[in-house]
Amino acid sequence: MTLDRELERYLKRVEPLKAEFLDKAQQRLDNLTKPQGSLGNLEEFARRYVAIKENLRPMMDRKMIITFAGDHGVTEDPVSLYPREVTPQMVYTILRQKAAISVLARFIGARIWVVDMGVDHDFEPMEGLIIKKVARGTKNITKGPAMSRDEALRAIMAGIDVVEKAFQDGADIIAVGDMGIGNTTPSSAMIAAISQIPAKEVTGRGTGLDDQGLEKKVEAVETALRVNRPDSRDPLDVLTKLGGFEIAGITGVTIGGAAHRIPIVADGLISTAGILIATEMNPLIRAYVFPSHRSVEIGHGAMLERIGIASVLDLSLRLGEGTGAALGIQLVEAAVRIYNEMATFDEAGVSKKRE
Amino acid sequence: MTLDRELERYLKRVEPLKAEFLDKAQQRLDNLTKPQGSLGNLEEFARRYVAIKENLRPMMDRKMIITFAGDHGVTEDPVSLYPREVTPQMVYTILRQKAAISVLARFIGARIWVVDMGVDHDFEPMEGLIIKKVARGTKNITKGPAMSRDEALRAIMAGIDVVEKAFQDGADIIAVGDMGIGNTTPSSAMIAAISQIPAKEVTGRGTGLDDQGLEKKVEAVETALRVNRPDSRDPLDVLTKLGGFEIAGITGVTIGGAAHRIPIVADGLISTAGILIATEMNPLIRAYVFPSHRSVEIGHGAMLERIGIASVLDLSLRLGEGTGAALGIQLVEAAVRIYNEMATFDEAGVSKKRE
Repeated sequence: MTLDRELERYLKRVEPLKAEFLDKAQQRLDNLTKPQGSLGNLEEFARRYVAIKENLRPMMDRKMIITFAGDHGVTEDPVSLYPREVTPQMVYTILRQKAAISVLARFIGARIWVVDMGVDHDFEPMEGLIIKKVARGTKNITKGPAMSRDEALRAIMAGIDVVEKAFQDGADIIAVGDMGIGNTTPSSAMIAAISQIPAKEVTGRGTGLDDQGLEKKVEAVETALRVNRPDSRDPLDVLTKLGGFEIAGITGVTIGGAAHRIPIVADGLISTAGILIATEMNPLIRAYVFPSHRSVEIGHGAMLERIGIASVLDLSLRLGEGTGAALGIQLVEAAVRIYNEMATFDEAGVSKKRE
Repeated sequence: MTLDRELERYLKRVEPLKAEFLDKAQQRLDNLTKPQGSLGNLEEFARRYVAIKENLRPMMDRKMIITFAGDHGVTEDPVSLYPREVTPQMVYTILRQKAAISVLARFIGARIWVVDMGVDHDFEPMEGLIIKKVARGTKNITKGPAMSRDEALRAIMAGIDVVEKAFQDGADIIAVGDMGIGNTTPSSAMIAAISQIPAKEVTGRGTGLDDQGLEKKVEAVETALRVNRPDSRDPLDVLTKLGGFEIAGITGVTIGGAAHRIPIVADGLISTAGILIATEMNPLIRAYVFPSHRSVEIGHGAMLERIGIASVLDLSLRLGEGTGAALGIQLVEAAVRIYNEMATFDEAGVSKKRE
């Protein structure tokens, strides 16, 4: 079976959520001791979680954060404040439990895996590290495509492999994060290509560029779009020409997650770029994606809008790694617990509203 | 000592945060393995928590939710969908661990106290219930003042008593919530009075009024303002004429919390109304207040703006009880853990940004 057909098979496995579960979850929510609808997005989270799990009393025992790492050829150009070697250094820092995402994983009681999708470094085997290296970084998108179509497919399938492993491990929910110096540049280029928005309106300061740096980065995005001419209606083409290996891995986990009925929690710009490719390939996947924060990166809002999910955290984050998504898992868990553990009006003997 | 002087004494104990602690916390944050400032509001939370605790490695061991309950004379008018007896019924539901806030307290590992500030019901002693009843509900604010000035002072001092107990219990942070049928009406009236905003612009649907119900509620707020003529520069006058006993209790906890260097986490409209009276009495208190969500209730935004804090959660909540504030505690805790547990660039051997 070719990779294309293997990917097709996964995309076709994604089912729409069943109205039966959504309705029954809503009925329960409406009978809990609170004014109807007063828990807002938390009610929507609970309803959707029930329908994804097809279980009227769903659990959330195994929480998982998966951070995909890759390097980017575009760092030849001055698009980031940090040198390329920071990508593997931060992978080690995450695995040594010392990065921001490590702290948050501990805090929320989640396991964390780091997947080397294309870091320019040879890692020794380490607990929590999964090697799926497609190449030692992408090619420079200002000069040509980031990768070949075959590499893009292999990278997506690697992400699907990872979700198969998570599924076998019993993962109830997965937050997807990224690590890769230079990776806001391809992500901005991808949303510009898909939504046909000018580069300037979706390109941000990344790790902290000044005005001049930002101007050069916008130029790099514009050049990448001009040189590569991605087909906005072909998400695989956009990913191939402008993307990153970690972004493709996130696309794979999102597709595989939806196929296995595992909710996926979006993080910031890069993670959402990967999710966007998945939802462009099959819009049914949207129902399996949960939002978390709205990044400082200006392209992020356009992506969320395109996917059709609204952010619920506004913390001015711009770190990546999955940090916002980890906090998002907490909110989904809060919603599921409220759904499961609150009393109904009848159970509590509380008067209902006047008719 | 009169109550006025006792309250003055607490208000005077509140100190500005020391630049020394803010600066040292910022230095540490800037050396952690992340781009500077990339954790946005979480960095501000950590910095402020350090300065409040005056401790460069502060802990957050004891989390506390305090939900203040009271009834409202204005429920004689058709301002709420729910009957007045729901206030004590929900107090019981919270104490039996079955309300939304009970679930969230368990989830975040916080203790919860419910304070009867003025419920129209005689409670038997129960674990977690503190009786500080000033009266069996306020008077109808559309006909005259909610309470006497002396009652308002006693209610504030009752809140301060509760925080003294929490302080002795070692509380590291306190989320303040409310329970009281009809209490969005006084809260909207209070922000209208203080900020001189038309009632229509700060009055919302509460537990779910329709258009006609909302119109009557706006009329009730307008009538309350006209009948009582509160002095917008005298927060105690605003509280006395328009407030509620649970709102006054929240004012007291906020003042006492700031005096004892305990951070206070705001919830929605009612909780923020109580905090607002405290910060109007002494603006130094603002530094001790942490935001959580932005309520669906339209008056909430005006209050947050007046206090000078920005919400970080946008979940369309409108339940109260402290539910949004409980989720806010989680975010402050995440910030403090990141601050304490992340590695610095030197510790992790990660390259710093290019100069």
